[in-house]
Amino acid sequence: MLSQSLASFIHRTKYEYLEEDVVQFTKLCILDWLGSALAGSHYKPVQILKAFIDEMGGNPQASLVTGGKTSVYQAALVNGASSHMVELDDIHKASIIHAATVIIPAAVAVAEYRQKSGQDLITAVVVGYDVAFRIGEAVSPSHYRYWHNTATCGTFGAAAAAAKLLELDEEQIINTLGTAGTQAAGLWQFIDDGAMTKQLHPGKAAMEGVLAAITAQKGFTGAKRILEGPRGFFKAMCEEADESKVTQQLGEVFKIKENSFKIHASCRHTHQPIDVVLELQKTYNIAPADIRHIRVRTYQSAIEIAGYANPESVYASKFSIPYCVAVALEKGSAGLDDFNERNLQDPNIRNLMEKVEVVLDPEIEEEYPHKWASLVEMELNDGRQLSQHVDFPKGDPENPVTKEDLINKFKRMTQDKLSVEQTNSWVDKIMKLDQIRVLDEWFE
Amino acid sequence: MLSQSLASFIHRTKYEYLEEDVVQFTKLCILDWLGSALAGSHYKPVQILKAFIDEMGGNPQASLVTGGKTSVYQAALVNGASSHMVELDDIHKASIIHAATVIIPAAVAVAEYRQKSGQDLITAVVVGYDVAFRIGEAVSPSHYRYWHNTATCGTFGAAAAAAKLLELDEEQIINTLGTAGTQAAGLWQFIDDGAMTKQLHPGKAAMEGVLAAITAQKGFTGAKRILEGPRGFFKAMCEEADESKVTQQLGEVFKIKENSFKIHASCRHTHQPIDVVLELQKTYNIAPADIRHIRVRTYQSAIEIAGYANPESVYASKFSIPYCVAVALEKGSAGLDDFNERNLQDPNIRNLMEKVEVVLDPEIEEEYPHKWASLVEMELNDGRQLSQHVDFPKGDPENPVTKEDLINKFKRMTQDKLSVEQTNSWVDKIMKLDQIRVLDEWFE
Repeated sequence: MLSQSLASFIHRTKYEYLEEDVVQFTKLCILDWLGSALAGSHYKPVQILKAFIDEMGGNPQASLVTGGKTSVYQAALVNGASSHMVELDDIHKASIIHAATVIIPAAVAVAEYRQKSGQDLITAVVVGYDVAFRIGEAVSPSHYRYWHNTATCGTFGAAAAAAKLLELDEEQIINTLGTAGTQAAGLWQFIDDGAMTKQLHPGKAAMEGVLAAITAQKGFTGAKRILEGPRGFFKAMCEEADESKVTQQLGEVFKIKENSFKIHASCRHTHQPIDVVLELQKTYNIAPADIRHIRVRTYQSAIEIAGYANPESVYASKFSIPYCVAVALEKGSAGLDDFNERNLQDPNIRNLMEKVEVVLDPEIEEEYPHKWASLVEMELNDGRQLSQHVDFPKGDPENPVTKEDLINKFKRMTQDKLSVEQTNSWVDKIMKLDQIRVLDEWFE
Repeated sequence: MLSQSLASFIHRTKYEYLEEDVVQFTKLCILDWLGSALAGSHYKPVQILKAFIDEMGGNPQASLVTGGKTSVYQAALVNGASSHMVELDDIHKASIIHAATVIIPAAVAVAEYRQKSGQDLITAVVVGYDVAFRIGEAVSPSHYRYWHNTATCGTFGAAAAAAKLLELDEEQIINTLGTAGTQAAGLWQFIDDGAMTKQLHPGKAAMEGVLAAITAQKGFTGAKRILEGPRGFFKAMCEEADESKVTQQLGEVFKIKENSFKIHASCRHTHQPIDVVLELQKTYNIAPADIRHIRVRTYQSAIEIAGYANPESVYASKFSIPYCVAVALEKGSAGLDDFNERNLQDPNIRNLMEKVEVVLDPEIEEEYPHKWASLVEMELNDGRQLSQHVDFPKGDPENPVTKEDLINKFKRMTQDKLSVEQTNSWVDKIMKLDQIRVLDEWFE
């Protein structure tokens, strides 16, 4: 009974079972999520959903990143949509799931509504990530052909987190998973049109998770074998599920630690060259004017997806290794605010871009996608030849970011939304989350 | 552009285009829906969803069959769930869709909220049925293996009806269909457990339709080819869609008239014998005590699904041709209130049940499922031999019910919820729906 095993895991996991590194890592996931959620809050898709829930009305149970409060499941909708807006939220490679944007809005809304503790929230997020990642791995790769894993598998994760915070019993958790799974949805078709569906999906998934858990608490029943049953999620929505992925080391290894963070506000395939040039610049104290030539050796997919030599829009610049490398060297970073029209037209950056050459490296290609490597060769005007190689972008578990990196990212992402005092207060609050006894206020 | 064709159809259809018989038939669909919605309102799954939306809160925009008002999309949720509870709601054979329970709760909620006219409501319901039936036929039969057509295809129908009432333009309707389609959900897995999911599905589908239309009105965008696109609904959720079903005679034939009604409160396979014995009883003025033997000749599926000779629960009695035939002869009907513990234990009914024999008829079997026929042979104590054959249960388009049949059904279904005056007032109101200029109150 696979769904039952998951329910039992969700039910029995306690804060005390989490190793210190899992707790600390989870705090960083929450901080990183909050940065994305605040950064996205003024964009149109989020504002439309906010206008929708304002029109519907609701009891002021949980806070919105856009300001104010609404009912707990509507808060999950808007905050979920907001945190997927600027595409800087976390990603789990093996399940292809952005977990934060679905699981954390569900969890923080329920935690605030039911006045849970920081430890409760951390436990719920750990459990939610675990459930989503495991289901996502089980249905990969075929599910992803049509379905947006973040939304579909994320619904189970959001439901798990909400159920944990509501302290449901095992039977109620099975029902929660049943209701969540039969409502799991999200087709990739929107990608052809670049529609706002991209933000709707995580928001709705978070909302469904909360709905499933609260109705289950009231006695609503659902399918008991929603994952493995003959007319369930696996049979209907992928070619052949690998059920072992769900139970392998369940409760022994918390998979949240496999999560990757994005430091740079661009396509993931641009990250390794950015990492390397920033490292070289720091080590050798290089000014952009010192550079004669930069050769980025990479794999084919990076060239195809992030190979724009001459991007004409801010959006396209995020898929241009030459721009990303140049802006990083000129500005010292490739954060959200480094991708703008001014920088895109900056003659110094344009000049530097022309010195960047992107080439296919057969050895690197051979290792992809096991490794997402890059080799950067830099030639300086004084004749020095520098080069550096990296196997994984910074933020992957194999090349982890530091707490300071993520705090800096948070500060930059929220600088136009929060005062310095507010930013510091948020960082402090989340870093001490395990000591907070009652989470009665999240964004106010 | 298939989705675009549907959007254009939804946009351009006007009340003036509907033939009088379509208008009259649609009123009966609405009356029949209301009966089911009121009859289901006190059951546990509905009451739990009501408790959920009460907890969430919402602006009082649309009325609930359970009493009171809530936000328009939450009203669609509860009223949708309620109208699928007693399993007496309508059914379209070719698409396997119960349309009323999804489309009408969405439509009446939006109509009340936006103070639309009776003609607007009728037009929206016609369009909603058409869209749902067409999509359901396009994905049949493979979709039904895993997916609850009523919920998945119904979501598009609810969205179409809501969009029509909101007077969206064609572009907004395309976006509505995109958002609705990417949220279309509902797996059959719950059937293994008899879970409350059965009621959740139509309620959620109605809710999603309303959400999709209102957000589209505010500018939210969705996939433009949600049905036919390479990662859209058809590709992801059935083996091979027959796209011609969507556009065949679109705008020329309104498919709502293909709808079937259920008069008797039992499994559809019991209906033909019930119809025949009631007809024989009326024609020959037969008392139950006059009967020596009844032989019901039917097809194999009816025997397998509705063959219980000795049902032990009220639920099982709805799947017992002997009980259904006996109760109809004893009570003159097989309505919702004829299926109860008292009748199940009634010695007269029990006695009559023993005289009912159900046998496979090879000729009838050969014609199934093209025809759902039955032949009843009745032998009386005075030696007379009566027999009558029917090709379709009453309520199918091939064997239509009268307006009076449906009004009587409505009265019986709502007798413990409404006073006689209220019932008559509802019947009057719906029969004059095309003359109502502002639908500002539905259930209060």
